[in-house]
Amino acid sequence: MSAAQDPAGPGGRRVRIVGTGLIGTSLGIALVQAGFAVSLDDPSPTAAALARDLGAGELAVDTASAPDVVVVAAPPDVVADVVAAELSRWPLAVVTDVASVKGAVLAALRDSGADLSRYVGSHPMAGREKSGAMAAQADLFEGRSWVVAPGPQASADAIGLVREIAEAAGSVVLVMTPDEHDAAVAAVSHVPQIAASLVASRLRDLPSGAVALSGQGIRDVTRIAASDPGMWTQILAGNAPAVRGVLESLAAELAAVLEALRHLESDPDAGSVGARAVLARAVAHGNAGRALIPGKHGAAPTTYATVIVVIPDEPGALGRLLNDVGEAGVNLEDLRLEHGIGQPFGLAELSVMPSAVQPLITALTALGWPVHP
Amino acid sequence: MSAAQDPAGPGGRRVRIVGTGLIGTSLGIALVQAGFAVSLDDPSPTAAALARDLGAGELAVDTASAPDVVVVAAPPDVVADVVAAELSRWPLAVVTDVASVKGAVLAALRDSGADLSRYVGSHPMAGREKSGAMAAQADLFEGRSWVVAPGPQASADAIGLVREIAEAAGSVVLVMTPDEHDAAVAAVSHVPQIAASLVASRLRDLPSGAVALSGQGIRDVTRIAASDPGMWTQILAGNAPAVRGVLESLAAELAAVLEALRHLESDPDAGSVGARAVLARAVAHGNAGRALIPGKHGAAPTTYATVIVVIPDEPGALGRLLNDVGEAGVNLEDLRLEHGIGQPFGLAELSVMPSAVQPLITALTALGWPVHP
Repeated sequence: MSAAQDPAGPGGRRVRIVGTGLIGTSLGIALVQAGFAVSLDDPSPTAAALARDLGAGELAVDTASAPDVVVVAAPPDVVADVVAAELSRWPLAVVTDVASVKGAVLAALRDSGADLSRYVGSHPMAGREKSGAMAAQADLFEGRSWVVAPGPQASADAIGLVREIAEAAGSVVLVMTPDEHDAAVAAVSHVPQIAASLVASRLRDLPSGAVALSGQGIRDVTRIAASDPGMWTQILAGNAPAVRGVLESLAAELAAVLEALRHLESDPDAGSVGARAVLARAVAHGNAGRALIPGKHGAAPTTYATVIVVIPDEPGALGRLLNDVGEAGVNLEDLRLEHGIGQPFGLAELSVMPSAVQPLITALTALGWPVHP
Repeated sequence: MSAAQDPAGPGGRRVRIVGTGLIGTSLGIALVQAGFAVSLDDPSPTAAALARDLGAGELAVDTASAPDVVVVAAPPDVVADVVAAELSRWPLAVVTDVASVKGAVLAALRDSGADLSRYVGSHPMAGREKSGAMAAQADLFEGRSWVVAPGPQASADAIGLVREIAEAAGSVVLVMTPDEHDAAVAAVSHVPQIAASLVASRLRDLPSGAVALSGQGIRDVTRIAASDPGMWTQILAGNAPAVRGVLESLAAELAAVLEALRHLESDPDAGSVGARAVLARAVAHGNAGRALIPGKHGAAPTTYATVIVVIPDEPGALGRLLNDVGEAGVNLEDLRLEHGIGQPFGLAELSVMPSAVQPLITALTALGWPVHP
């Protein structure tokens, strides 16, 4: 195994990974490649052996030394128990977990009387639609945020060690409290999931044919509504307090919008100025919130300019277009495709820096592309 | 003007367009190119002259003949008045409008005593982020749905004429009643807009830094939250009854989810099976609704397979990749880009027919692309 080439690892670190699914195996591969000595454990010996064969480390049964850091990558509903067991089994090791909710794990550990100075919860913001070791990839964490969420009793050394692991895997570390983390993921992940599901759910009530009016807007809003109900039930239940908080704030604004619509319905013209203001404010608040989402590479949001190009729907057409964009020396910041109904072409919306718009239009037009600024 | 080359138009049709903004001007250009005789009118003579210069038709003041069809492309709040005026001014013409809400216009015309046999409301599902004649494009309607929504008194001839206009502009016509139309756009457009705004609005309550956890999910859900509050207030107010109906159904399911979260909060383990079932059902309903959205080209939804490729963030890299995809003879069905935080590369998620996955992986790997199936 690669780990044997450098048994000490960076700073002599030995990392034990418990749970060799997608996250555990990917992390093992990344850490082995970074030179750590990684040992692997899993309730299923077959799963652990598969992870070993994929280059994620040695089997724990073959490892004599005690770990410096244990990473628990177990399913959400057993995380707290596994963390508690690892803390007592390795009395000198720092233990972290990668569950997507942090407050509940810490509370369960506190109740169990575990040594909280050596526990530092964390949450890599990485995942794939596939699960299991076979979907593992060394660069799963590259460029992703990895939240390190120490409780009040965690030692500075423990925090530093967990941070080192996350950074060795290529992640950008964000430190926040478990409660801050849970409120943040409620707002940026769990509530958007519920909203997408509730919007998509309404389509079930439409007569067939009416859904044909769906445009790009609802496609974007409901893309994540295709997610797995079982997994999301675990996530939402695990973060119930924080999700409820954000969702109640959403429900209150929704109630105001509904009240405004009722006013407008009974009196479309006069006296409904206040009702219109409620609607305008809801959309304006959305503008303000949307503008907070960071742009590419975590930078401040940038307003890109868009150029729309009509592309024939044939193999290679999009590639030729983007090749021409590249040869024009223009860096594409984002790209969206839109397909027409019953037509053999689509639209490509190219997002570029505002200063690049004119050179891009000139270059593409010269090459015969139908461009709409 | 081009219209003069074929003054009779297809079937001898003369079309009068009232309102030369984005929709009116684009339609004029498309109909002139299709050989119709188009005349243009607008409260602003300058706006009408600009549309003429863009090839959208002749100025109405220069046209002697009465129109066969009048298309009212005026702002939503004056549409009904303008339609009524056109119906009385041209006693033989069929009049349509392109407003995004249909029930309110028909109700206002009924109240005004207009000749409803010659009025057929319609709604082209086309638009751009920009407005005004300068943003006009001949292919704005190509491949888009165009709803023709006749009231009960509309004549078959009138319906046929409006349908002819929509099809001449390149649209795919869907016929439904005004109420069916308004319920459909409430569900596929207006409620998604409100949901996106309400989700984005919650980000305003987060501490700075926490928004950095935003991933692709919330970016997609909130993309349309950047829309214009003034325009959306008009749209939502104009469709208040239908939007309220869909939104109340959403609010009821939201209340059930909130109740379930409260149960789980007070009792995370025992006795909360019912609460978990409510959450799972909400997500499963979302799965079912999402699956109803038609796929590319209006076809039944297809499950594409995805291949993920790591691309360096440099001019032309994406173009080279897609060029290589094209040369592999593989047709790209969809493409999503994801940028890492603080890293000079991104991920491209290529959607292709399942049968194309293996050939694509083989071809790209041979060319040195880091591919993740």
